[in-house]
Amino acid sequence: MRNFAIGAFDSGLGGLTVVKELRKALPNENIVYFGDTGRVPYGSKSEITITKYAKEDEAFLIKNNVKLIVAACGTVSSLTVDKPNTLSVPFFEMITPAVKSAVKATKNKRIGIIGTYATIKSEAHKNKIKELMPEAFVLGEACPLFVPMVENGIIDKNDIVVKEMVKRYLKPIKEAECDTLIMGCTHYPILESAFNEYLEGKVTLINPGEMLAKTVKEYLTENNLLNDSGCKKGLENECKIGLKNYGNNKNSERSNELKQGIEKTGRIEYFVSDKPDSFMKQALILLGEEASGDITKIDIEKEK
Amino acid sequence: MRNFAIGAFDSGLGGLTVVKELRKALPNENIVYFGDTGRVPYGSKSEITITKYAKEDEAFLIKNNVKLIVAACGTVSSLTVDKPNTLSVPFFEMITPAVKSAVKATKNKRIGIIGTYATIKSEAHKNKIKELMPEAFVLGEACPLFVPMVENGIIDKNDIVVKEMVKRYLKPIKEAECDTLIMGCTHYPILESAFNEYLEGKVTLINPGEMLAKTVKEYLTENNLLNDSGCKKGLENECKIGLKNYGNNKNSERSNELKQGIEKTGRIEYFVSDKPDSFMKQALILLGEEASGDITKIDIEKEK
Repeated sequence: MRNFAIGAFDSGLGGLTVVKELRKALPNENIVYFGDTGRVPYGSKSEITITKYAKEDEAFLIKNNVKLIVAACGTVSSLTVDKPNTLSVPFFEMITPAVKSAVKATKNKRIGIIGTYATIKSEAHKNKIKELMPEAFVLGEACPLFVPMVENGIIDKNDIVVKEMVKRYLKPIKEAECDTLIMGCTHYPILESAFNEYLEGKVTLINPGEMLAKTVKEYLTENNLLNDSGCKKGLENECKIGLKNYGNNKNSERSNELKQGIEKTGRIEYFVSDKPDSFMKQALILLGEEASGDITKIDIEKEK
Repeated sequence: MRNFAIGAFDSGLGGLTVVKELRKALPNENIVYFGDTGRVPYGSKSEITITKYAKEDEAFLIKNNVKLIVAACGTVSSLTVDKPNTLSVPFFEMITPAVKSAVKATKNKRIGIIGTYATIKSEAHKNKIKELMPEAFVLGEACPLFVPMVENGIIDKNDIVVKEMVKRYLKPIKEAECDTLIMGCTHYPILESAFNEYLEGKVTLINPGEMLAKTVKEYLTENNLLNDSGCKKGLENECKIGLKNYGNNKNSERSNELKQGIEKTGRIEYFVSDKPDSFMKQALILLGEEASGDITKIDIEKEK
């Protein structure tokens, strides 16, 4: 069980920024990621539909032997915060760790939240903040253009479009003198340095993926569930299969290791529900590294 | 039959710019519009999936008594151009009228196309141009940020973000000295004046929706299928039902007419497949008028 993978899912590929944080905090853990690219976006869909999709995503991960599940998805997180976990494995959403961290960080008790329309409208962060710090002033701002900007690589803090859009969306946060800002959408940490530039480094930026990874690490440590298989040598047969399945990245770090009969832990397996064409481009932006792992297309509606 | 409505469908609400052109060209026609907002976008999905969705959308329109069907959707159009029509009613896609018009307009035989990644990658316009004008130089440019910009009202030609993004995407078209440009995505005509500004009015902009509406008008005229029911008075009972169904816009033109017992032709009925929350905001941007007609949410997968 302890050497099972961490399961993470998102409506699309934004959750890869969460995978990035999980990798930083827990380099020895295997991760199974499911991006529901065939049904993205969830945010515009009804609660019943989103709940149905989330259940299917979770069932798929559980079938893949995961020791816990992370909702690396803002929309699903906002619907599951404080709800009882009905899964057979522990479940972590992104709202609670981010809010706890923001409440701890703020000095003037003025907290901003940026996110998609759906996330801001859900008031999930706001309600949780009010629960922990009833006297807090909370300001939510929807920033709908940030996701397509990030997905199209318009992320440089010196880019005039980035500067202008960050200014437009973050001006109310600056004017309200929030000293802490939750980046409440998985894509937003990619724009962190642009936010910092506009806010003159005066505002503590909370990356929910980072806080979630910290929470997961604490949980695994406390419950003696950290992966201890380490790096194995001499697994020639296993490596041959790995190499065969591995596909394109013939010269990557992993394929070189496999050729030497080394099977490392800390691997990621990616599953998507529509054609994985743009996966690599998105992975480079969101994960900050080339996705070195298998990418498999599944039919999520037939996985049940 | 001639007084049946025109059926139009799109993966989302972009097709409303086509409805706008149909309204201009054929003010007396009733229109039934289906926006598949629950499954938007189509562009990133596989051909099999898109074809399945299009068939469902068409079947829904046919069930609603339409005399012809318009694919007000770039993705579906690019998959159906030159394919035989298997429907029980005439079918019109957006590629052919736009390309015919571009080929007619160009003087230097240099034609540009802008669209989503999927549309440009399909080369549907390019292939059709080459068929009609083999010697033409054709340049396609994907402009992925234009759709979210339009959907979020970032459309003013003097807006610095609009100016900058138009420049970035259209620079290759300008440099290639194309004298004609097909706006190959339903959202793009909303940015027409920004394109004109950057291209200094030197490039003929082709609006596929406008060309499609012209083609449909010609077809209806030639086949004696124009709606001739005109404006009816004294339909008190019918109007009472209309008024009851009409919902929110109590002070709109149509509700005032209904109160007077007048049932006009040239009405639009809207159907969407997910919650219609943002419909009004989008309609204002894309249709250029408040959507005066019923908006009904349907479950497209159960409509079969």
